[in-house]
Amino acid sequence: MTAHQTEILPPRLGEPYLLTPGPLTTSFPVKEAMLKDWGSWDDDFRAMTRDMRTRLLALLGPGADDFDCVPMQGSGSFCVEAMLGSFIPKTGKALVLANGAYGQRSAKTMEYLGRGYIVLDKGDYLPPRGDEVARILADDAAITHVVAIHCETSSGILNPVEEISEVTYAAGRKLLVDSMSAFGAIPLEVAQVRYEAMVSSANKCIEGVPGFGFVIARKSELEAAKGNSHSLSLDVHAQWANMEKTGQWRFTPPTHVVAAFLEALRGHEAEGGVAGRGARYARNRDVMVDGMRDLGFETLLKDRWLSPIIVTFFCPASAAFEFGKFYELMKAKGFIIYPGKLTVVDSFRIGCIGQMDENVMRQVVEAAAAALSEMGVNDASPPQAALEERAKLAA
Amino acid sequence: MTAHQTEILPPRLGEPYLLTPGPLTTSFPVKEAMLKDWGSWDDDFRAMTRDMRTRLLALLGPGADDFDCVPMQGSGSFCVEAMLGSFIPKTGKALVLANGAYGQRSAKTMEYLGRGYIVLDKGDYLPPRGDEVARILADDAAITHVVAIHCETSSGILNPVEEISEVTYAAGRKLLVDSMSAFGAIPLEVAQVRYEAMVSSANKCIEGVPGFGFVIARKSELEAAKGNSHSLSLDVHAQWANMEKTGQWRFTPPTHVVAAFLEALRGHEAEGGVAGRGARYARNRDVMVDGMRDLGFETLLKDRWLSPIIVTFFCPASAAFEFGKFYELMKAKGFIIYPGKLTVVDSFRIGCIGQMDENVMRQVVEAAAAALSEMGVNDASPPQAALEERAKLAA
Repeated sequence: MTAHQTEILPPRLGEPYLLTPGPLTTSFPVKEAMLKDWGSWDDDFRAMTRDMRTRLLALLGPGADDFDCVPMQGSGSFCVEAMLGSFIPKTGKALVLANGAYGQRSAKTMEYLGRGYIVLDKGDYLPPRGDEVARILADDAAITHVVAIHCETSSGILNPVEEISEVTYAAGRKLLVDSMSAFGAIPLEVAQVRYEAMVSSANKCIEGVPGFGFVIARKSELEAAKGNSHSLSLDVHAQWANMEKTGQWRFTPPTHVVAAFLEALRGHEAEGGVAGRGARYARNRDVMVDGMRDLGFETLLKDRWLSPIIVTFFCPASAAFEFGKFYELMKAKGFIIYPGKLTVVDSFRIGCIGQMDENVMRQVVEAAAAALSEMGVNDASPPQAALEERAKLAA
Repeated sequence: MTAHQTEILPPRLGEPYLLTPGPLTTSFPVKEAMLKDWGSWDDDFRAMTRDMRTRLLALLGPGADDFDCVPMQGSGSFCVEAMLGSFIPKTGKALVLANGAYGQRSAKTMEYLGRGYIVLDKGDYLPPRGDEVARILADDAAITHVVAIHCETSSGILNPVEEISEVTYAAGRKLLVDSMSAFGAIPLEVAQVRYEAMVSSANKCIEGVPGFGFVIARKSELEAAKGNSHSLSLDVHAQWANMEKTGQWRFTPPTHVVAAFLEALRGHEAEGGVAGRGARYARNRDVMVDGMRDLGFETLLKDRWLSPIIVTFFCPASAAFEFGKFYELMKAKGFIIYPGKLTVVDSFRIGCIGQMDENVMRQVVEAAAAALSEMGVNDASPPQAALEERAKLAA
């Protein structure tokens, strides 16, 4: 417990905890902030937008002055598309580092944009490493941008963005980061990791409700982005230029969601910012993973790559285990877990983010033990194929 | 008062009414519906999405079975872009009917898309009429789609979509309608007006909070839209296909805003649907316009074109009148009004939509009278130039 530790209150009676990568369980004051209507043109709301942008930039640490924050309506993927379409010029070429669904989605977005790209596809969960990225960049002078996923939510792997950044800039290229599920809990300070732009969204580690995301980009890149975008709605330069000029979003903002997010940012600060939030999530992960391992479950990833965001477990080999049933039993006990997204073996995921602490995580483990017992699963260990998959990680 | 009339409650203490075209003043139960967190993957939320789509389709009246409803994250303009990019093929050509900012925005979107279009620009508020649309279609065989704005919120004009639809289909072309600020209060039943697709958003006449919109389109057009979109996020076909297959939104939905919208749809139904809602808004307009005219204000539009959505008034010619001051005085009295969007003369707008009835509108007029008095404006009549502008409407 740090001095900053804030009280974690349970959801209201009958509401399950969301052990998912967002939407997640938010605090009641965050939701309560939505009990009012705002005029989006009015000074009061403009002040809220300004406050939000300032608070988000502060999370970048020293050097943040060179950056600006541009909120964008829609889900996180809308923001990723806005970043790619606005910062990679029509003549550019991206190297997309993929090890899961979100890397693949960035590649698919480049396909829609009709702009140049290649993919380094590491499969379901292997991390893209600096040396292989450096080799690709050395071999292909046309590549202008590297696109990296900070925490790949498909597997829960925390990708090594620092070493990716180093080789990217050593080769004279630019880095764009999808930090959707990491920003706010895992440091991404500009003095530590060089990048041109990153995106995240309201309903991840800052613990707001879903409805918009934000692009944080170097001001010089924002200026240079004029005319790049394939989309009026997703044009980061236009959104930024309008916001700088008028203090307003170009098109109707999700006013209530913004109000909730401001309250969430205050809670984030009260908890000790990125360090405090990250520490709580790490404890959540440790308590939950230890408990699940005690029950016989195995994680997909070795400890080194386990993020404090979400953890993938193999489904037990036992014929008595059926994920749909496990999901319903866990839900009846007050916990909504998340299906897996691996292509090779059956898995499920448990999130560590949201308004939950280690006490809740102990209850999660107890619920999982009870659910196994009710299903008649005596042994939660995974099939041999799963362990063989995992062994590749060591290779 | 109809049998369906529901109680309109004032906003909580100290909150102003939003006399704007959205975000607008919503009921407290609508906002209260946001006090819970939902897992977007969970059955409960899928059922909410299904319920919402069904309820929206029902507003189309007989023949709705040929259509489907595809909600889309982001603001209304995101939905307009999604509709244009998904239904006008890359080889298509649009005739955009513009008489204000929203028509212009559709044209700008076509420019971003790099697809063919021409604009019939009627200036600030003149309605595009059937005969002139028919002439343009006769002269240009390349035009595949006509894009019409139902209620152009810049001036508040209610455009004649029925006659536009008639000439469009008589010429063998297809109609797309931006019914953003009209749908839910002004009938757009498919048995009365033929069109292929329309868009609106959560925070207009259904009286939800902002955060998403929806495209309602003929199923055959949805099927044919595969591969058309310039954008992954805004691909209506992909969103529809995924929703049909899994019951889920492709990317994180604004769960709380969806919950609020469902509550708003229940309120809409309780008020008597489109007819009941439209009747209340029409009373709001009539009471407010009569009162403002009694104070000496003049509307931009003649009664025939006045929508029950929002009304544009000329700023008084009096040297004592200053819009910024008038705005602040009105706000202090509990009413947030809206600046004008005309290019030629100074104006302001007062919205008729949201949780307000004729009693509230009488208070608005009283507040305007008091504000004029405090500013020392004895005569609220507009400058001669404004009246000359308006005279063009008769031409």
